[in-house]
Amino acid sequence: MHNRIPAINDLLERLIAERPGIPDDLRRALLYTVSAPGKRIRSLLVLWCCELVSGRENPNASVAAAAIEMVHTYSLVHDDLPAMDDDDLRRGRPTCHKAFDEATAILTGDALLTLAFELLSERIDDAGIAVALVRELAQAAGATGMIAGQIADLKAENTAGTIESLEFIHIHKTAKMFRCAAVMGGLCGRANREHLDALARYGLKIGLGFQIADDILDVSASSEQLGKTAGKDLKAAKCTYPALLGIDRSKAMERQLAEEAVAALEPFGQGADVLRQLAVALLHRNK
Amino acid sequence: MHNRIPAINDLLERLIAERPGIPDDLRRALLYTVSAPGKRIRSLLVLWCCELVSGRENPNASVAAAAIEMVHTYSLVHDDLPAMDDDDLRRGRPTCHKAFDEATAILTGDALLTLAFELLSERIDDAGIAVALVRELAQAAGATGMIAGQIADLKAENTAGTIESLEFIHIHKTAKMFRCAAVMGGLCGRANREHLDALARYGLKIGLGFQIADDILDVSASSEQLGKTAGKDLKAAKCTYPALLGIDRSKAMERQLAEEAVAALEPFGQGADVLRQLAVALLHRNK
Repeated sequence: MHNRIPAINDLLERLIAERPGIPDDLRRALLYTVSAPGKRIRSLLVLWCCELVSGRENPNASVAAAAIEMVHTYSLVHDDLPAMDDDDLRRGRPTCHKAFDEATAILTGDALLTLAFELLSERIDDAGIAVALVRELAQAAGATGMIAGQIADLKAENTAGTIESLEFIHIHKTAKMFRCAAVMGGLCGRANREHLDALARYGLKIGLGFQIADDILDVSASSEQLGKTAGKDLKAAKCTYPALLGIDRSKAMERQLAEEAVAALEPFGQGADVLRQLAVALLHRNK
Repeated sequence: MHNRIPAINDLLERLIAERPGIPDDLRRALLYTVSAPGKRIRSLLVLWCCELVSGRENPNASVAAAAIEMVHTYSLVHDDLPAMDDDDLRRGRPTCHKAFDEATAILTGDALLTLAFELLSERIDDAGIAVALVRELAQAAGATGMIAGQIADLKAENTAGTIESLEFIHIHKTAKMFRCAAVMGGLCGRANREHLDALARYGLKIGLGFQIADDILDVSASSEQLGKTAGKDLKAAKCTYPALLGIDRSKAMERQLAEEAVAALEPFGQGADVLRQLAVALLHRNK
């Protein structure tokens, strides 16, 4: 597979740089934030899942990929705020409120979230698909999705925690957005119901596996590798899989989720190999 | 005209109370925030404009009214944060971050903004109208709309200010959302292009008039009347119309905007009387 990340980065920057009417201060903060080096996994999932079900690239999928990446980026900007996780470093650079100020960071997050819906409502060439994309993204990101996970995460700080509460946090903060990315890709490719359900299962499994891998890396990797403050979960007394289950059992769970993700791809043929590789790659990632 | 506000309040509360899966803490903060007594002008505009162009009530308009009110409410919650306007009192009650905490207030705002788009994508019975509503709302609220106004407002603090910069702030922070409300109502009523344009002009004019009235009230009314801290613009060294032009010229400008708003309604007959009355009522409001 060729490297799609530069094209995603370029699209994100262009969508902001070329949009008329954004005040200069805000545009600078938006560009700073989206241009930080990210893994763009959610975007890649949208593109790959669209191509899997339709056999071709599709401009709608690029828009959906940019939209979900903007929502993910907004969530990082707000999570890093002093009132939330209070973090100074993200993707190897000062966080938005450190590089600018808190008010600008709050508004930058708000603007990214809103821009995602602007893009979906402006640039998808089929109204039925556009509405379905808005619905998937808003539900995954909202009060019963990512925000529910963040509220539970903040509440769990400095508590012993249970596997149930931790699973709730990881599913809501992370896995639902991975699920959403896979389904958005499927919607752009006009997937049938069976294929959409398979993609949803796959996305949820690799999302949860990804977050467990993140927990493990936070314990074992350096800040330089991660580009964000390492050991911060421990410092914030956050409940994690390694803290609750130990490293070995956490790794076993990660492996199991990768297998379940691969199993979900059963309705697809060889075209899904890139998604299978992604599930396995998550087991070996080091940042 | 009968009082529509209790029905709007009831709808806002039900949409949150009856939505499964919102964590309890977040649901409490959401209900606290939307149940604060508001004037609901944006919601009323949606309902009235829909009825003006279609001659009847319409469930889509109720959904759109709730969505724009949620976006307005989110903007108040974030504007009141310590890093922004740092306000303790809103609609006669402690602001969200005072009643709960800052992290909850940030997430409550995020959740309201997202919920607006969830509702539009879930509950509008025509995909074309739903996409148009999402587009209007996201554009009015986003980086070239309300958020642009808030960035400019923060930047203008403690500066002398000019009429141009103040007009930019008021148009972006307030008038574009009024314009949006009127257009959303028109879209729900399947208005033709000429009528949509007329509603857009009307909304922009009364929105700007409303904000100038707000500036005047901040100087002349008490905190008790306003339900929010009076004189806070002065205290925050905010640039306002009375500060730049004096009260008399500000009132003259307010009158002129009301007249222009009424003139924009020319394509409509007697059915627009309630909108004409609203334009005049803004001149006499005391809170």
